[in-house]
Amino acid sequence: MVQPTRQIVLKRFIDEAPSEDDFEVVERELPDLRDGQFLVRNVLVSVDPGTRARLSGKPSYIPPLKLGDVVGAFSVGEIIESRHPDYAEGEIVSLADGWSEHVISKGRGFIRRITDRRLPLSAWLGVLGVSGMTAWFGLNRVAGLSEGQTVVVTSAAGAVGSAAGQIARLKGCRVIGVAGGPEKCGWLRDAAGFDHAVDYKNTDDVGKAVAEAAPDGVDILFDNVGNRMIDQVIPSMNLNGTIVVSGQIAAYNDDDPPGLMNTRAFITHRLKMQGLVVFDDLPNWSEAEKSMADSVVAGDIVYRDEISDGLESVPRAFAGLFRGENRGRRLARLRPDPFKAEADK
Amino acid sequence: MVQPTRQIVLKRFIDEAPSEDDFEVVERELPDLRDGQFLVRNVLVSVDPGTRARLSGKPSYIPPLKLGDVVGAFSVGEIIESRHPDYAEGEIVSLADGWSEHVISKGRGFIRRITDRRLPLSAWLGVLGVSGMTAWFGLNRVAGLSEGQTVVVTSAAGAVGSAAGQIARLKGCRVIGVAGGPEKCGWLRDAAGFDHAVDYKNTDDVGKAVAEAAPDGVDILFDNVGNRMIDQVIPSMNLNGTIVVSGQIAAYNDDDPPGLMNTRAFITHRLKMQGLVVFDDLPNWSEAEKSMADSVVAGDIVYRDEISDGLESVPRAFAGLFRGENRGRRLARLRPDPFKAEADK
Repeated sequence: MVQPTRQIVLKRFIDEAPSEDDFEVVERELPDLRDGQFLVRNVLVSVDPGTRARLSGKPSYIPPLKLGDVVGAFSVGEIIESRHPDYAEGEIVSLADGWSEHVISKGRGFIRRITDRRLPLSAWLGVLGVSGMTAWFGLNRVAGLSEGQTVVVTSAAGAVGSAAGQIARLKGCRVIGVAGGPEKCGWLRDAAGFDHAVDYKNTDDVGKAVAEAAPDGVDILFDNVGNRMIDQVIPSMNLNGTIVVSGQIAAYNDDDPPGLMNTRAFITHRLKMQGLVVFDDLPNWSEAEKSMADSVVAGDIVYRDEISDGLESVPRAFAGLFRGENRGRRLARLRPDPFKAEADK
Repeated sequence: MVQPTRQIVLKRFIDEAPSEDDFEVVERELPDLRDGQFLVRNVLVSVDPGTRARLSGKPSYIPPLKLGDVVGAFSVGEIIESRHPDYAEGEIVSLADGWSEHVISKGRGFIRRITDRRLPLSAWLGVLGVSGMTAWFGLNRVAGLSEGQTVVVTSAAGAVGSAAGQIARLKGCRVIGVAGGPEKCGWLRDAAGFDHAVDYKNTDDVGKAVAEAAPDGVDILFDNVGNRMIDQVIPSMNLNGTIVVSGQIAAYNDDDPPGLMNTRAFITHRLKMQGLVVFDDLPNWSEAEKSMADSVVAGDIVYRDEISDGLESVPRAFAGLFRGENRGRRLARLRPDPFKAEADK
């Protein structure tokens, strides 16, 4: 049967900071399912800063969205109809098909079944989703995290950064976070157990503050910000240090982002810089997810969500990310949590 | 006994391109040997662009020279007197004690014994010395060179670059060199067996020329030049490609070298960039040296020297490096080759 739904599409290309007027909520009808397809009713959709990279209309390494396209995002939802042999009605899945109340999937691309009912579904869009897995594989695969290292995490109060810092803390590392404002820095120290938090909004010299917080030098820089931040930390890095390029949030709204200057240190300090896209790690995802879920259930890894209400809340929540107003991972709830509803019965 | 000698010292700090007037030849007397020391009479000294980094008087990662200091360089020489238990009169060694006719060594720091008499001593200051070993370990240890890859080498006609390209060719890789001028490019293709040579002095767009020469993309960039060059090659790089930061010759005379701009590609293309200082690889040096020496003896790796005559020829030879006038590794001969003299007897 035809499924009426609502979606958020790109109304105009974005040059600088996004505003909610750049988007439009439209009503659509999804066609009948064909063989090999299933229909998902989304419960939560994610509001990710990384989406920004596709909204300028300019050719990039990532294909840009066209006007009228549904904006990409992750979601968690319930399969309400299936003509696919591997997916059954009633299953809960996470997928990457955008800001839409319903989605038709062919079972290809990024799809994860969610069967662990110990945590709210929102966790699977953050600490147990792409954000948490980026932290996990960035530290463990790319940087070869080991006990006793000093790890600097930037954009540390974000979903990726806060997971990264806590993974490093659980491994027995000294963890320094860089974040903006006393509230975020307080949360990093008091709730997330970081050894030190540098408030870049209230520090003249981030590089100096990091150096003071890392008297034995920095072994791993897990960076979500961009070149200027990396350049400030490089002078503190130890021989054979690793820079994990996890994200470049400072470059998303900047047509002319600064270059990386301290490249001579790659020779003198034998540095390694490496980027990742976490989907390369899908073959090892289940093991990482299980380990992270156990830590979250045990209270050893904490996270913060900010969940707004309804699809129409998404554009404002997204624009606010670029004003730094969020205090946790932003999501929008489209329906009640089916696991929770079941448990409440 | 006191040993009279001649040395080249730094006369004034260098801001831009070096000139021969920045140096001075001085006469000195080396003191009597103490226990644990030996006296070397140098046969050849090297004239290296990398020396430039220490001549500006400015603090850097490398300690700068002071005015009046002997300028650092590699040399090969004969031990003519020894009070050191491990080194005997008559042995030939390579060491790193600067532009000087004689050197007193305590047997610490960089010293290699030279016993393989199949090649002229000059080879041990180039293809079998620090240059060749940088190429070897940069490709094999840092980049994990393997058969069938496409490798781009910059400053390809230099001592490091020409060794790197030939190591890659012998491994069964497609090799593209970037060098300045038709003479160097011709030598790379005709003598060194590179598959392709891009003449950056006669190409509007080096990045485009590299892309055309690498239709299957680039797996390894072995860079000796600097950020602007790396930025031009990055768009051609394959997923999981490696950039080896071997040198930054473009930055040595530039107080304000450009930053590396294409860092977003580290995420999208999963790039890795890593620098090296080849002295870290001393424990594995003998094996690499033996393999390279065999290839050179067999004619599978070729190299070019430009040997000038006498210590006083060094400043002019050094300044000329920064005008790109050299056609091979520059050395100065201070005495006849003792191996050759022996063979001629």
